[in-house]
Amino acid sequence: MASIFTKIIKGEIPSYKIAEDDNFYAFLDINPNTPGHTLCIPKKEVDRLLDLDEETYMGLMAFSRKVGLAIEAAIPCDRVGLTVIGLEVPHVHVHLIPLNDMRDATFQHKVPQSKDDFMEIAEKIKAKIK
Amino acid sequence: MASIFTKIIKGEIPSYKIAEDDNFYAFLDINPNTPGHTLCIPKKEVDRLLDLDEETYMGLMAFSRKVGLAIEAAIPCDRVGLTVIGLEVPHVHVHLIPLNDMRDATFQHKVPQSKDDFMEIAEKIKAKIK
Repeated sequence: MASIFTKIIKGEIPSYKIAEDDNFYAFLDINPNTPGHTLCIPKKEVDRLLDLDEETYMGLMAFSRKVGLAIEAAIPCDRVGLTVIGLEVPHVHVHLIPLNDMRDATFQHKVPQSKDDFMEIAEKIKAKIK
Repeated sequence: MASIFTKIIKGEIPSYKIAEDDNFYAFLDINPNTPGHTLCIPKKEVDRLLDLDEETYMGLMAFSRKVGLAIEAAIPCDRVGLTVIGLEVPHVHVHLIPLNDMRDATFQHKVPQSKDDFMEIAEKIKAKIK
């Protein structure tokens, strides 16, 4: 069965899209640690990061860097953190999280956003993609 | 002033080394989330991940993949997580953490290890580096 992220890539589930190319897709996490929290995923559906072939792994990291730089340019923060855990959705995803405090990185504290918040944040980040 | 990690690279502070090449260094985190928790750092002392030049960033991610695969081969776990936060030591470091449970990824729960534990774990991981 297709993962929830494959359904998002195909447009069967809506998302606040940040960036897309032939192999990767970025969109806002709808349960964000902080505003601007974004997920970058390979279109190829693989469960574990280190099971990705080297080319896809390196491509995902390059894509995440590009998106992360746009987040840093768009969202006031000390820095953007990068985290891959993957215990919940079996489709590799890189979390890019605007951080100011260690609490922002623990996934134990969430900042709910409205639809308008998400749309505004997505537009701000997209405008900074190079 | 040199960061604590630069002192580790230079051997001025001891570490349980896992791997090293011209540009990168990997060693066990002495305050591990789980046994096998390893840090990969660039020898170049830069504070923020996304301030690394693209070549160093990509090199660090390739080096971390190699070390991560060795950890997965050496340490029983569901998968190895990869996290860059960086709010505490101003020298980029990639955390590679053997994960079985979300708690292992939160940095809120630590598993103290003895010197013998660290030495045994370092040898096990080093033996799996390709």
